[in-house]
Amino acid sequence: MPQSFDFGPWPPLAYVNSRLERASERRNDHDYIESAIRHSTARAVIISGERVVLRKRGTPMDVLFAIDEARSFGVESEPVFLGLANDAPRFGFSMAPDAAERLKTSDLLVIDLRSIVVQGLLAQEDLQPIAVAKALLTWHAKHRFCANCGAPTQSSEAGWRRDCGSCGAQHFPRTDPCVIMLAIDGERCLLARSARFPQGMWSCLAGFVEPGETLEEAVRRETREEAGVQVGRVVYFSSQPWPFPMSIMIGCHAEATATKLRVDPNEIEDARWVPRAEAALMLERKHKDGLSTPPPAAVAYHLIRAYVERGPDVLREIR
Amino acid sequence: MPQSFDFGPWPPLAYVNSRLERASERRNDHDYIESAIRHSTARAVIISGERVVLRKRGTPMDVLFAIDEARSFGVESEPVFLGLANDAPRFGFSMAPDAAERLKTSDLLVIDLRSIVVQGLLAQEDLQPIAVAKALLTWHAKHRFCANCGAPTQSSEAGWRRDCGSCGAQHFPRTDPCVIMLAIDGERCLLARSARFPQGMWSCLAGFVEPGETLEEAVRRETREEAGVQVGRVVYFSSQPWPFPMSIMIGCHAEATATKLRVDPNEIEDARWVPRAEAALMLERKHKDGLSTPPPAAVAYHLIRAYVERGPDVLREIR
Repeated sequence: MPQSFDFGPWPPLAYVNSRLERASERRNDHDYIESAIRHSTARAVIISGERVVLRKRGTPMDVLFAIDEARSFGVESEPVFLGLANDAPRFGFSMAPDAAERLKTSDLLVIDLRSIVVQGLLAQEDLQPIAVAKALLTWHAKHRFCANCGAPTQSSEAGWRRDCGSCGAQHFPRTDPCVIMLAIDGERCLLARSARFPQGMWSCLAGFVEPGETLEEAVRRETREEAGVQVGRVVYFSSQPWPFPMSIMIGCHAEATATKLRVDPNEIEDARWVPRAEAALMLERKHKDGLSTPPPAAVAYHLIRAYVERGPDVLREIR
Repeated sequence: MPQSFDFGPWPPLAYVNSRLERASERRNDHDYIESAIRHSTARAVIISGERVVLRKRGTPMDVLFAIDEARSFGVESEPVFLGLANDAPRFGFSMAPDAAERLKTSDLLVIDLRSIVVQGLLAQEDLQPIAVAKALLTWHAKHRFCANCGAPTQSSEAGWRRDCGSCGAQHFPRTDPCVIMLAIDGERCLLARSARFPQGMWSCLAGFVEPGETLEEAVRRETREEAGVQVGRVVYFSSQPWPFPMSIMIGCHAEATATKLRVDPNEIEDARWVPRAEAALMLERKHKDGLSTPPPAAVAYHLIRAYVERGPDVLREIR
């Protein structure tokens, strides 16, 4: 009889469940946005590439700055409007790398988003506004010109669109759908390593959804391409915004129908079928060889944990 | 006691389940692609904006053309490599509107993709390769310049990437994730009309997933923004490639928690709570006022039908 596992309460996914109301109907109201940014309750997050500016003050730290203070730090360009937190306007500013470096001399920390999450430097509710700001500001930084005609474009709709004054094209922020899946063969599951992973870490396979395929087809294709494994049934589990740079991770469990491994070295470093009891040790950081899963902030942890706790029952469908 | 409905076998969704193997590992093999397009079994689909070139021959019609014949029609530019169908290479070509108009004088039909699906002009397995080609070729047409620096870009990877020779940026095809959801309040469901819909047609609400939100958050936000309705539980149903121009529709059922309607006239024309028995008549095209749902090729039909057949049980989760 299989072992039973229960690790207690589930930790939250990162980048979900903020208290931000996006108030998208306000984005094209120029007067509103102008007054919102001058409002005494207005605050901004400051993003510099992969890094975020924090104010040290114990844990959690503070990621919200008054608009004038943010401007005094030397933020770039115009802000993006993130929405309202209990009616208080929230914005995002970008900052050049050299300006961010100079901030490190004060009571401020400039640190990459992954470290913020892994070290738990911010309150859970502050992570999603950063994810929104980072995805939007990265998109702006890489889309200053019109893909249709090559002319410079301008930000509009409070940062939610870019307009070409030359050909008239309107460009919208991009979000790349990406499937991440745990293939299951009874009492073992398929974990893989990318060369980019920290030592000892194994995770789920993942890949971008291509034009003209369903989520389920993407799960099957990526599992076959990267590990040579065939999967049949695919069961959606949950999704997570993933601002590296601008994806949404769509997590699924999948039932293996042919289990022989054939690793594509261009895609992953290694893949193996991991017994459920061993995956439990990896989740708990108690594996004898120091192997581990991604941290609880990532949907991969949740996919693996759901399987470890419930076994192949995660593949039961309601339909 | 609620009525029971069973409409028999389910029709297939459009744009899914082709027999195409994408063979993505071949895309960067220039010699392979060069030989594949000269192979005797190579065939191409021809896309002109929203329209597709078909050869009349009863139903289903033929959408695959020999490469030399496609070129003789005056297709544009280089092809995109769609993959292999039973080892036979498949490509997609684009064609300028005026060249497509000229083809209408022969045994060929040039017709928009929606009509092809609604009229059932093609075999089910031929729809997905068209969706892939249309999404890719539309992306190429609208991304001839580098969004990062404004210089012209060139197609690479057999049409699956565009490269900038000036700043070195690599651009990948875009797929926009879009949620489409049926909100349920016991024995009634929420249907809405867009001004773009054919007369009498009502469907599910839908909208793009924004940067930094989960699928479930997007479902809740769009339902609230467009109709004023609050939903809690969200249950994934199925997904569908939607090449208008390059989306993936992610279909969900959602449980209403506050049902008062407040329609946003900028987003939709009208919304109403439709009793399950009335939705059944709309699905079957037997509604006394001529109201109807989208056709069976669309995931909206499937979302509504699943609810009509199974009732609020579609909201049961396995977790």
